[in-house]
Amino acid sequence: MSSERPLKVALFGSGRIGQVHARNILANPELELVLIADPFIEGAQKLAEGTGARAVATADEVFAEDDLDAIIVGSPTNTHVDLISRAAARGVAALCEKPIDLDIDRVLACRDNLRGSNTPLMLGFNRRFDPNFASVQARVQAGEIGRLEQLTIISRDPAPAPASYIAGSGGIFRDQSIHDLDMARFFVPDIVEVSATGSNLFCDYIEELGDFDSVVINLRGARGEQITIINSRHSAFGHDQRLEAFGSDGMLTAGNLTPTSVRKYTAAGAEGADPYLHFFLERYAEAYRRELEGFVQSIRQGIACSPGFEDGLEALVLANAAEESARSGRVVKIGKD
Amino acid sequence: MSSERPLKVALFGSGRIGQVHARNILANPELELVLIADPFIEGAQKLAEGTGARAVATADEVFAEDDLDAIIVGSPTNTHVDLISRAAARGVAALCEKPIDLDIDRVLACRDNLRGSNTPLMLGFNRRFDPNFASVQARVQAGEIGRLEQLTIISRDPAPAPASYIAGSGGIFRDQSIHDLDMARFFVPDIVEVSATGSNLFCDYIEELGDFDSVVINLRGARGEQITIINSRHSAFGHDQRLEAFGSDGMLTAGNLTPTSVRKYTAAGAEGADPYLHFFLERYAEAYRRELEGFVQSIRQGIACSPGFEDGLEALVLANAAEESARSGRVVKIGKD
Amino acid sequence: MSSERPLKVALFGSGRIGQVHARNILANPELELVLIADPFIEGAQKLAEGTGARAVATADEVFAEDDLDAIIVGSPTNTHVDLISRAAARGVAALCEKPIDLDIDRVLACRDNLRGSNTPLMLGFNRRFDPNFASVQARVQAGEIGRLEQLTIISRDPAPAPASYIAGSGGIFRDQSIHDLDMARFFVPDIVEVSATGSNLFCDYIEELGDFDSVVINLRGARGEQITIINSRHSAFGHDQRLEAFGSDGMLTAGNLTPTSVRKYTAAGAEGADPYLHFFLERYAEAYRRELEGFVQSIRQGIACSPGFEDGLEALVLANAAEESARSGRVVKIGKD
Amino acid sequence: MSSERPLKVALFGSGRIGQVHARNILANPELELVLIADPFIEGAQKLAEGTGARAVATADEVFAEDDLDAIIVGSPTNTHVDLISRAAARGVAALCEKPIDLDIDRVLACRDNLRGSNTPLMLGFNRRFDPNFASVQARVQAGEIGRLEQLTIISRDPAPAPASYIAGSGGIFRDQSIHDLDMARFFVPDIVEVSATGSNLFCDYIEELGDFDSVVINLRGARGEQITIINSRHSAFGHDQRLEAFGSDGMLTAGNLTPTSVRKYTAAGAEGADPYLHFFLERYAEAYRRELEGFVQSIRQGIACSPGFEDGLEALVLANAAEESARSGRVVKIGKD
Repeated sequence: MSSERPLKVALFGSGRIGQVHARNILANPELELVLIADPFIEGAQKLAEGTGARAVATADEVFAEDDLDAIIVGSPTNTHVDLISRAAARGVAALCEKPIDLDIDRVLACRDNLRGSNTPLMLGFNRRFDPNFASVQARVQAGEIGRLEQLTIISRDPAPAPASYIAGSGGIFRDQSIHDLDMARFFVPDIVEVSATGSNLFCDYIEELGDFDSVVINLRGARGEQITIINSRHSAFGHDQRLEAFGSDGMLTAGNLTPTSVRKYTAAGAEGADPYLHFFLERYAEAYRRELEGFVQSIRQGIACSPGFEDGLEALVLANAAEESARSGRVVKIGKD
Repeated sequence: MSSERPLKVALFGSGRIGQVHARNILANPELELVLIADPFIEGAQKLAEGTGARAVATADEVFAEDDLDAIIVGSPTNTHVDLISRAAARGVAALCEKPIDLDIDRVLACRDNLRGSNTPLMLGFNRRFDPNFASVQARVQAGEIGRLEQLTIISRDPAPAPASYIAGSGGIFRDQSIHDLDMARFFVPDIVEVSATGSNLFCDYIEELGDFDSVVINLRGARGEQITIINSRHSAFGHDQRLEAFGSDGMLTAGNLTPTSVRKYTAAGAEGADPYLHFFLERYAEAYRRELEGFVQSIRQGIACSPGFEDGLEALVLANAAEESARSGRVVKIGKD
Repeated sequence: MSSERPLKVALFGSGRIGQVHARNILANPELELVLIADPFIEGAQKLAEGTGARAVATADEVFAEDDLDAIIVGSPTNTHVDLISRAAARGVAALCEKPIDLDIDRVLACRDNLRGSNTPLMLGFNRRFDPNFASVQARVQAGEIGRLEQLTIISRDPAPAPASYIAGSGGIFRDQSIHDLDMARFFVPDIVEVSATGSNLFCDYIEELGDFDSVVINLRGARGEQITIINSRHSAFGHDQRLEAFGSDGMLTAGNLTPTSVRKYTAAGAEGADPYLHFFLERYAEAYRRELEGFVQSIRQGIACSPGFEDGLEALVLANAAEESARSGRVVKIGKD
Repeated sequence: MSSERPLKVALFGSGRIGQVHARNILANPELELVLIADPFIEGAQKLAEGTGARAVATADEVFAEDDLDAIIVGSPTNTHVDLISRAAARGVAALCEKPIDLDIDRVLACRDNLRGSNTPLMLGFNRRFDPNFASVQARVQAGEIGRLEQLTIISRDPAPAPASYIAGSGGIFRDQSIHDLDMARFFVPDIVEVSATGSNLFCDYIEELGDFDSVVINLRGARGEQITIINSRHSAFGHDQRLEAFGSDGMLTAGNLTPTSVRKYTAAGAEGADPYLHFFLERYAEAYRRELEGFVQSIRQGIACSPGFEDGLEALVLANAAEESARSGRVVKIGKD
């Protein structure tokens, strides 16, 4: 592999997530960052500074580039379908942030478009690459706890995004829970039933927008597995990202991360750890790095990307079902057709 | 208090739970065990040996006793309504194992019977007295984590009871989950909605009996609190009894208990603890002791017992609702009438 | 065993430690508490109240008792040699609190006295019976970590005793460290070298009394094992009682005990436990119970008590050597003669 | 700072530690790796490949380079004095791996040479930059646990180095313990007394070389602080690197690192973590990165390096004293002259 030239990569989006990807691309000897695209050209220019990459404002400029091997899509959700469709048409690999789109019809139409394409396309469910969750999943697959029976996923953000973001987010199920729904599918790909409840417990503007700030989702797998997802838009003690896989022979858990191994003991209490890592970019820094490595490996070795387009679609189907259940008070069956 | 004579107590039932109560009564200087009643008289006799208590076969013999202060009911469920009714009629305090009865109509009729009685009556939801759960509940009430938003209760038995027991148990919701439903009410007394799902994952005879071996229950409190109960009839690693109270300002958790503080470190892994305590009598030994102390205190101080009859009724209502939801796939509203 | 009559026991001392033993004797069906002896007769009377035991002021009254099976010695150190000698002469078993005496010559003379006696005599090194330390020791003996190479014992009291106690205590090595020296011998019976250092870090009156408040002791076992004892007369976070056994194949540790399994998570920190148990009677409650059971078992089964007189002597020899080393700055060899 | 050109750096040594430094230099935008020097020129060439650095065989070629800003010395110990002396003479900053030299006389002579030099010189005691230990030290300095009274440092290597390495290592005190002696001085700079013991417990060739495989060192600080260092040349469960700072108001500890937060629960045991990180380059990867950042910062801001030359000297003095004490069985006083 080392004898091959680095892959030429274009990055869409110079915001928070674009910056993470830019750093990881630059640190990866397999990749060469050639273009950074953002209609807010100043952002692209600032990020490109000193990297050797060229800043451009439009997708046309990106797709005009010769020898482009891959794009990484960190631009707003409503650009995703268009960009991955153009990439597939050009034979350019794509790593696209979730979700594919908030509108299931657009996603299905996109799927029709992509039918027959062999171009690598990876969906950015980065948590599958988190070393902690990935380790539990691999060990469950390896049979360490026998048959998986119950999976509990607790996922709480440190603080709610601002109202402007929430308004366009598609709601908590499609914006936040979708990560956990994909995590559920990472362990149990076939989900047959969804039920959910939502509450408004602490955030007025979320309630005013008709969204929930706290939800619980129950999934049933094809073999009866019970999966519980507990979400909140806030967490006083930092990013709360845990899971427990309970099987016939035992349990494997992945806990939160502390910045150090330091513990404190005083008259007020014992064994106190540092507060948990707060920000998702910090919490999932390693996951983003490994995701990029996985993408490169898929391209180099011609292996289908995982998670791929179908995983993005399935997670959206589950998120929609969860919302429907929370609104109707009924279990929603997931049809296989 | 120490100047008063000990309370004269009769114990119904000489089985597993009766033996626990017998030991705790004998160790409590406030109590004098005068009678042990069991139609299986040999059991009563064996348990009475060397204790100073008299073994009898019938309730009539118990209620014929002069100066009886209290009964402790550890006999089969179908005797509970009769015994607590007779005790109330005689003005004898009662500590009755859960449930009051499996049939809600009998429980409601019993409530009518008891109306107007001031005789102390405690329901044996012993987990409220577990030092770990009780500490979390007290600290939540004291406002340590702000407003309670999400409560997660994980409760798994080490191994399923035999088919004969399951057959008469009233099913997992009324037999096992009822403890957790009461625990939910310990934190959030007013529950307004119940939904649940059940699965058959590992135990054939439970499935043949039409019962579930694994269930998940979601409750909503009157102020929107979200409560999740996860139950299994087995757990390879011992009694799994935990809870997490998540609030606006933080989280308090109660974990499983290890028999020692010993940890092991080898090439195969680090920080391994002993297996968890397996048997509920061991896990909840301290809870049973404290429950009895609470009962004595209620009698001595004339304070209403907590948990009391209404708590037993409410837990049964929730268990029935959970079963209905699991069968129908719909959220069940809990009416306040 | 249950068919035998209970052993008749006399208790010397009605102070803190006497009260612990009294409670445990009363709770043990194998034992009958017949006498409580204390020259401060009011203390003996108060403790005897309601127990069926008789309060006496003198040892003569105790040893005049017919059918006495055992004495438990919780009276001041300077009474120990006399009481265990008289017990041995009378053929009465004895459980004696540590130390045998602060003066090694009196201990050696006592040993001469006891030579030839088969009467059971147990030394009250209760920590050998602590379930946590006992588990580590048994697992090390069973070879779980291969050959034991390094043993680290950390033992800190919550707060220094008052000056009056310190003045007659024999100093930190003979009063506090002696427990840890015995613990060292529990793992490595043959100690061949001792070195120690002492500091005065926080307690003026201890310094004025010519004693240390903080010491570190290093021992070498006959097979080269390295043992480190770290002591302090105070600990802001409660009783600090831990050990680590490091062997060729791994490590076993015993940690401190928290009153509950509750953990707290806030913006200020994560996973904080309750403060540790503070008082040694609480921390070692189970150890005292098991010690008494071990004593009964030795008597009933005619097995030599462990720890016995020699263990008390050896611990004192090591304490004296540690003091000598701390004063001289030299390693002290322990002669076997 | 970003407007300044990167510092031109030459690296001595292309072995294990040289490779770590090379990677970190390349990843640091403040540094430009211009030369890699190793008499084993193939090693230098291999490491230089694709980095833009030039491989050279001799120090002369390095010091002939124009505009050289800094050298990083990862070559064998016997080259250190020469290289840092030449760097100082040339006004080139140096980051030198520990120890300065195994021979105290050469170190003292070197100090004479360096007298008057203001050129930045940092000693590679990388553990001071470990986030866990650094956090404890900073919090102790900030007074979080009151006055520091006892410091316990446990430091065990996964496995002994081969005999060839041990033979030239200067012995365990100067090779392994020296890191912990520096860590002790990180917390308590003024050490006034040293005592130590050594054992041969598991490694025949170490014994044959006249060295110990297991040592315990006690230090006394100028204010009476007691410091205990426990070392072993092996550890079945991976790199064992912990410390406990015990103070008048509490304790802060830094524990070992697990590769993930995963825990396992089975019938065989609960809460088992992954084995600890094994190799020091993995365990201290972050420390090496931060050390390099600290070096850059000292150069850029003209601040004296910490740890510096005197720290290297003092650690060697303590290592020599520990060896002397272990051989003589006496406390060794550390003179301040």
